[in-house]
Amino acid sequence: MQSYAEMSKEELQALRKKLSAQYKEFQGKDLKLDMSRGKPSAEQLDLSMEMMNVLNSDSDLTCEDGTDCRNYGVLTGIKEVKELIGDMMEVSPDNIIIYGNSSLNVMFDTVSRSMTHGVMGCTPWCKLDKVKFLCPVPGYDRHFGITEYFGIEMINVPMNEDGPDMDMVEKLVSTDDSIKGIWCVPKYSNPTGNSYSDETVRRFARLKPAAPDFRIYWDNAYGIHHLYDHDQDHLIEILAECKRAGNPDLVYKFSSTSKISFPGSGIAAIATSRNNLEDILKQLKYQTIGHDKVNQLRHVRFFKDIHGMVEHMRRHADILRPKFEAVTSILDRELSGLGIGSWTTPKGGYFISFDTLDGCAKDVVAKCKKAGLVMTGAGATYPYGKDPHDCNIRIAPSYPPLGDLILAMELFALCVKIVSIDKLLADKETVEKTVAPAESKAEA
Amino acid sequence: MQSYAEMSKEELQALRKKLSAQYKEFQGKDLKLDMSRGKPSAEQLDLSMEMMNVLNSDSDLTCEDGTDCRNYGVLTGIKEVKELIGDMMEVSPDNIIIYGNSSLNVMFDTVSRSMTHGVMGCTPWCKLDKVKFLCPVPGYDRHFGITEYFGIEMINVPMNEDGPDMDMVEKLVSTDDSIKGIWCVPKYSNPTGNSYSDETVRRFARLKPAAPDFRIYWDNAYGIHHLYDHDQDHLIEILAECKRAGNPDLVYKFSSTSKISFPGSGIAAIATSRNNLEDILKQLKYQTIGHDKVNQLRHVRFFKDIHGMVEHMRRHADILRPKFEAVTSILDRELSGLGIGSWTTPKGGYFISFDTLDGCAKDVVAKCKKAGLVMTGAGATYPYGKDPHDCNIRIAPSYPPLGDLILAMELFALCVKIVSIDKLLADKETVEKTVAPAESKAEA
Repeated sequence: MQSYAEMSKEELQALRKKLSAQYKEFQGKDLKLDMSRGKPSAEQLDLSMEMMNVLNSDSDLTCEDGTDCRNYGVLTGIKEVKELIGDMMEVSPDNIIIYGNSSLNVMFDTVSRSMTHGVMGCTPWCKLDKVKFLCPVPGYDRHFGITEYFGIEMINVPMNEDGPDMDMVEKLVSTDDSIKGIWCVPKYSNPTGNSYSDETVRRFARLKPAAPDFRIYWDNAYGIHHLYDHDQDHLIEILAECKRAGNPDLVYKFSSTSKISFPGSGIAAIATSRNNLEDILKQLKYQTIGHDKVNQLRHVRFFKDIHGMVEHMRRHADILRPKFEAVTSILDRELSGLGIGSWTTPKGGYFISFDTLDGCAKDVVAKCKKAGLVMTGAGATYPYGKDPHDCNIRIAPSYPPLGDLILAMELFALCVKIVSIDKLLADKETVEKTVAPAESKAEA
Repeated sequence: MQSYAEMSKEELQALRKKLSAQYKEFQGKDLKLDMSRGKPSAEQLDLSMEMMNVLNSDSDLTCEDGTDCRNYGVLTGIKEVKELIGDMMEVSPDNIIIYGNSSLNVMFDTVSRSMTHGVMGCTPWCKLDKVKFLCPVPGYDRHFGITEYFGIEMINVPMNEDGPDMDMVEKLVSTDDSIKGIWCVPKYSNPTGNSYSDETVRRFARLKPAAPDFRIYWDNAYGIHHLYDHDQDHLIEILAECKRAGNPDLVYKFSSTSKISFPGSGIAAIATSRNNLEDILKQLKYQTIGHDKVNQLRHVRFFKDIHGMVEHMRRHADILRPKFEAVTSILDRELSGLGIGSWTTPKGGYFISFDTLDGCAKDVVAKCKKAGLVMTGAGATYPYGKDPHDCNIRIAPSYPPLGDLILAMELFALCVKIVSIDKLLADKETVEKTVAPAESKAEA
């Protein structure tokens, strides 16, 4: 494949014409494809339908300690679900609070509580002039949405293949006491799919924050969401690592079963140190009488234990794997060697991250949309929706059926080509305009 | 029955001795009775067990508009559950947001949002020096808990048979702009069981608050929780009344199915004006992707419509009615005419309110506990747990089986008698001490 950058203006124009014809063909197909969010497909949801049968009108809804799960009470979750989610999150059940259906809501509440009541006796953030969060980028738009909502200033930190730029994180966190947190998706990260290396996790656990109320917001959303049976990323468990490093209270770990059982009807949890749990419980006991224990019991009776859950995730992987592989193989086939884009090839999670040439992402997404394909908005992976290079696009392969996905990715690759050519042609024009007068001058 | 106040010291002492013997008998029974919370009984929970069957692995979990309830999305609730809960709350589905399992949590979030972001553009409460709430007393301890948690100053307002003292409410609300809210349980109030009269509701709707961000927190927890088929309290619908009075944004109305389906596994909602809804949605869209739609669908398919729900509540009433009647008949039999207590006889809800002689409530609750009966803590029905007269006790008849309840109420009445006698005897002694020297002086 010839790199586009090496092609002449005329070659690019000729190619542009050919690609435009292909694009028009796509437009004629009246497509309605949606790859905007990391939603499981209907086929994946079908995997959990047996969960609808585990409780029926003859069931005993008493949990192991004798509690009637149908009634009020049990603020932090029933014992057996703490055990299951503890195994899922790789922490002791004693370090867990089980919440409702949304880990995003738990994160929101965690920030909200820090605003109104502070963290473990520190000044409430709403009383401070300035509160900042570090945001590895590209990252998860809904994380950035929470901090933006609370008026927290967000600082971009580059996300590398092995995790955030830890030199920058260490420097900022140790010198600026207005930095109160960092958003992390440490495993199969949203959107790159990369996982933090052992060294990165160790450096996180050994941070020496200037602010005593600095916390790592460790959203381990894809902890067991592998695509392959044997080729899996492994992440050092952060709670234990923080404890070993003498920083037991440094991290809040979040997770949920949203992409294991049902999105919106699963179970979310926080795992953290006893000190942090105590601090959280001071709020929680006023906030609610308890979360949905019937649903907790339903999950335990369906999955039985972590082995059941892992086996369940293999069935998810069987559906997701061909989709991820379709995306990367189409990108390989269509774009490899052209020098107009790069992408990740994750071994798990829900996303593939694509980088266009600088200044092309918005146009690519717009061009896709005009032919009936909705992608995640360009810029969404950055705080305030502002990608400084306008190059990152999140690809979410999970939701569309495989046939649609193939079509979508072919359209996507085509749009990348067209927008890149337009960009290269515009660049050439700028160069000509700049160079031409100089040449005229030389001739004169 | 002879009033205790009219009895001589010797008569009281003799009676005290007899009652002490009865109390010792109770202590010998090794009772473990709990009337502390308004929890439905197991028998009531059994009424909803068919709800476990309405969804199974063959069910189509698509809702009317085609949404797959198993997946992400639908921030404010599925259409059909809004219709059902709208009928339950007597408001249009368009005025509703469906939440998770706990209306308490919705109230907490409402206060929390007002703290961090203010109400419809007003200054966030966390930026104000002083925020106050009016608290009709006796009232619901968990309401007071929320405002206490946020450092909001609570002002007691007497709760009368027809609702809060509206002269006081009107005066305070119209003159003090630091008063931002009032906690109301308008129907079958917690704990008195009284409902607000038409006049009270009309006066609420016509309040002219000094603070533009003043809101009525209208917790209609017992809207359809009648004990009788025909003898029911009726409450004017507050949203419509506020609209008619030109005060459309004045009220947040809360409700849930906690005491209809399953406590902790039901559905909660807020109903309010479009302006308020818009204001709330600005938060909600960052807080969560959506609540549990499978559970919403489960509720709709079980109850079908408001008629199904009302029929269901009749079955609850059949279980609750004998318990309420047992409580009041035992109180009548044991305490009527003695002048040592008064109590309410509600036609719905979950509580009966009992007033002892001043200064006796704590001792009565403690005496019950020593014989194995846990009541709601004395003082719990007042902000900060401080009942200025130490006289109010909340009776929660729903949870214990009828046999236990009868035993518990007999013990309760006995404790009221003993503590009242001790109080009267102590009073007599004080009088003697005060009078005696005077008499000696006169004699001298």
